[in-house]
Amino acid sequence: MATRVTVWNEFRHERESDAVADVYPNGIHEVIADALADDFEVETATLDEPDHGLTETVLEETDVLTWWGHAAHDEVDDEVVDRVHDRVLDGMGLLVLHSGHYSKIFKRLMGTTCSLKWREAAETERLWVVEPSHPIADGIDEYVEVPEAEMYGERFDIPQPDTLVFNSWFEGGEVFRSGCCYTRGSGRIFYFRPGHETYPVYHQPEIRRVLRNAVAWLDSGSDSVPAFGNADPIESIDTSDDRSVH
Amino acid sequence: MATRVTVWNEFRHERESDAVADVYPNGIHEVIADALADDFEVETATLDEPDHGLTETVLEETDVLTWWGHAAHDEVDDEVVDRVHDRVLDGMGLLVLHSGHYSKIFKRLMGTTCSLKWREAAETERLWVVEPSHPIADGIDEYVEVPEAEMYGERFDIPQPDTLVFNSWFEGGEVFRSGCCYTRGSGRIFYFRPGHETYPVYHQPEIRRVLRNAVAWLDSGSDSVPAFGNADPIESIDTSDDRSVH
Amino acid sequence: MATRVTVWNEFRHERESDAVADVYPNGIHEVIADALADDFEVETATLDEPDHGLTETVLEETDVLTWWGHAAHDEVDDEVVDRVHDRVLDGMGLLVLHSGHYSKIFKRLMGTTCSLKWREAAETERLWVVEPSHPIADGIDEYVEVPEAEMYGERFDIPQPDTLVFNSWFEGGEVFRSGCCYTRGSGRIFYFRPGHETYPVYHQPEIRRVLRNAVAWLDSGSDSVPAFGNADPIESIDTSDDRSVH
Amino acid sequence: MATRVTVWNEFRHERESDAVADVYPNGIHEVIADALADDFEVETATLDEPDHGLTETVLEETDVLTWWGHAAHDEVDDEVVDRVHDRVLDGMGLLVLHSGHYSKIFKRLMGTTCSLKWREAAETERLWVVEPSHPIADGIDEYVEVPEAEMYGERFDIPQPDTLVFNSWFEGGEVFRSGCCYTRGSGRIFYFRPGHETYPVYHQPEIRRVLRNAVAWLDSGSDSVPAFGNADPIESIDTSDDRSVH
Repeated sequence: MATRVTVWNEFRHERESDAVADVYPNGIHEVIADALADDFEVETATLDEPDHGLTETVLEETDVLTWWGHAAHDEVDDEVVDRVHDRVLDGMGLLVLHSGHYSKIFKRLMGTTCSLKWREAAETERLWVVEPSHPIADGIDEYVEVPEAEMYGERFDIPQPDTLVFNSWFEGGEVFRSGCCYTRGSGRIFYFRPGHETYPVYHQPEIRRVLRNAVAWLDSGSDSVPAFGNADPIESIDTSDDRSVH
Repeated sequence: MATRVTVWNEFRHERESDAVADVYPNGIHEVIADALADDFEVETATLDEPDHGLTETVLEETDVLTWWGHAAHDEVDDEVVDRVHDRVLDGMGLLVLHSGHYSKIFKRLMGTTCSLKWREAAETERLWVVEPSHPIADGIDEYVEVPEAEMYGERFDIPQPDTLVFNSWFEGGEVFRSGCCYTRGSGRIFYFRPGHETYPVYHQPEIRRVLRNAVAWLDSGSDSVPAFGNADPIESIDTSDDRSVH
Repeated sequence: MATRVTVWNEFRHERESDAVADVYPNGIHEVIADALADDFEVETATLDEPDHGLTETVLEETDVLTWWGHAAHDEVDDEVVDRVHDRVLDGMGLLVLHSGHYSKIFKRLMGTTCSLKWREAAETERLWVVEPSHPIADGIDEYVEVPEAEMYGERFDIPQPDTLVFNSWFEGGEVFRSGCCYTRGSGRIFYFRPGHETYPVYHQPEIRRVLRNAVAWLDSGSDSVPAFGNADPIESIDTSDDRSVH
Repeated sequence: MATRVTVWNEFRHERESDAVADVYPNGIHEVIADALADDFEVETATLDEPDHGLTETVLEETDVLTWWGHAAHDEVDDEVVDRVHDRVLDGMGLLVLHSGHYSKIFKRLMGTTCSLKWREAAETERLWVVEPSHPIADGIDEYVEVPEAEMYGERFDIPQPDTLVFNSWFEGGEVFRSGCCYTRGSGRIFYFRPGHETYPVYHQPEIRRVLRNAVAWLDSGSDSVPAFGNADPIESIDTSDDRSVH
């Protein structure tokens, strides 16, 4: 069965700023969806839809959710964040993009501030592949060069990634862990740094290839379901002790 | 300077249950504090104190906080949880004990449900040392045997630990990752499984040794402070691009 | 293209011991090959063939190599070990089984002694799934019970696994990290504990399912090839400094 | 008891090249030893001494060994490599410096090729602290700038570090994981990239601070000793099964 992707976008900048609309006239989500459409079943959802477009039903039918947000992180309803959080822990993949590092859902999953350094100077970024055998790097050369990028620099306040796939160099002198894999609950998470609203990063073929690789990886886990709660012993043991305050 | 420890305890069971008061007449916190007192500067704090005993000042003056809670996790004020969370990310160590796996602060830091299997049958637990070179295992034999333990079993829904120090065997047939190290922000976290309210686990010398080792490790990080936010370039680059929606 | 698997076996016990021949009359390799045959292209190779059946050509045409050895680790030619090592670092997957923990190739890849505790008492082993979302756990219940197993116990002297998938309980009181994922070079490695020569472990359906899952995971990396060696600068920098002892 | 450090150096370039002797007239080892002398008990050893200065006795009395080699890796006797390897697995710390990435001992411990990209152009390196809470980063600012460095670039073919402390930026456009922590056996290993023979890197105060921090961390493990081999059951189980080919 094809992987079902929901591409979520804040979709504010594109409607409010000419500089952004020039690059993403129909919204960043449409450009990302287009990058994924040949390989996956893709839907989109945006902040200003009811429930931000992320109803229980939508999430149930989503294998991988991609997340782009920036200026309106605080407007994302906590109930929707809870819902997305539950679905990730239950097995849905989550692709967090660029300024999504500061989204409620990413901070919730990481448990840290997810703070970083930043600078908007349309400078060169070079994403070096540090783990070439990882499926997210498949088909990618030694590095991907983004000619105009917003800088994100270390210290990036995240838990150490389970796997670091990309490591970025910036013209202004910084480095950044720009492709980070995590497992949380039964779900997989990939943070991928590129993608500023005023630069045409999501039109770049290598970046689009990484997006497709990431979605495929995010949906390649197991369907096994863990059990929790009070459990009878498997071995024959004495269970007569009755000291308990439960 | 001596490590300053605050031993936090829910301190309800001990006042409400004879079975618990028999084992911990002055509260679990007093027994833990006693285990630490020779090596560290120790204070205690409990749920029913104002601010749960965890004011800004107390936390500022705490290098390592130990946490034991069980039945009243929900009564811990969210503002205090925020405060503890901030302090951990800022460098305070956190020792989460036994049923503290379900505390707000541990779930906040882990980003997962922290669910597990459990059973109260006063059964044997054997904590095997899987990483003998870790300072938390210093002075510990191949294993620590707890003659009467509540069982916690896998799947334990936590992020994969940075280091797994102890791995538990239970008489009834289960296993559990029972000593788990994490770094979050600038703070270190150690989850240590043993310590049920109706069994005298914190009176056991080997367990007390692990508590001391853990506190020492939790306070052995660096004092370096990361910087975040907008950053000027270090290299000389062209910063004239003015496309921005900030 | 189907994954090409070479199932390697020492194949001595089966020819020398009735107890083993009763369980694996045509060799352990035939039983493992049979478990994989429906899903993959499978060949076998054994110690007493020329080059141990692992010529350059065979390895070139192998995507995943499975390794079972026990009493004759020392008879494996160092040149063949070098060859297998090179192929793993170059991208071939390696499934190391049971007593293969002590093979030259596994110790070479791990860099440690790979020592452990052991006992032959046909006791119960229960492999608990600790990372249910991992593809190697797909279709597996909360645990796999092996009714008659050789015990392997911690401390298992291996580098901390990239991912720990299975964690074993033994009737005699020990635990063991029994399903361990690694990446080395461009290759993936999975150590899977079950499989003693005198017990019919590889006939057990759940174990055979794990073998299939493992082979699929071992072949699911990327085909990207890293570059090494002297490198021209990408940025325009002054390269006139001529201090060098090369 | 003070940590006992043995500073090992190939000590060839300094005697054969004026460019190197200008920077390290008495050998790189003397400059490193000087950086450590105030805090630790320091001895030195070099390639051309008998046993390379690394006899059984010397290693027994060494808590942390630092390793600098470059052109003569192949001249290090395999027996001495075995000896150092055994001591590391047995608990001795190992600080591998710069071109030591290609030493026999580091490749043995890592299990990989340890290959990388390189360039000698006396270019700027900036080592960013990515894990500021790690003790090796103590007292270090956000980054250490090395004004004249040999470039090492990714892909660096190493196992993913247990902790990545430093991440380097190079003027010519590359990045590199330049401070990598590992545990192997009971020993700790830190790979630290800076330190070229023709540039005065080890005279730089921040680099010397990292060397001291690293030595302290490398000696801060536990003294617990694991047991291996045949083991009697701890629980009472039936051990009458006699199927065995041992």
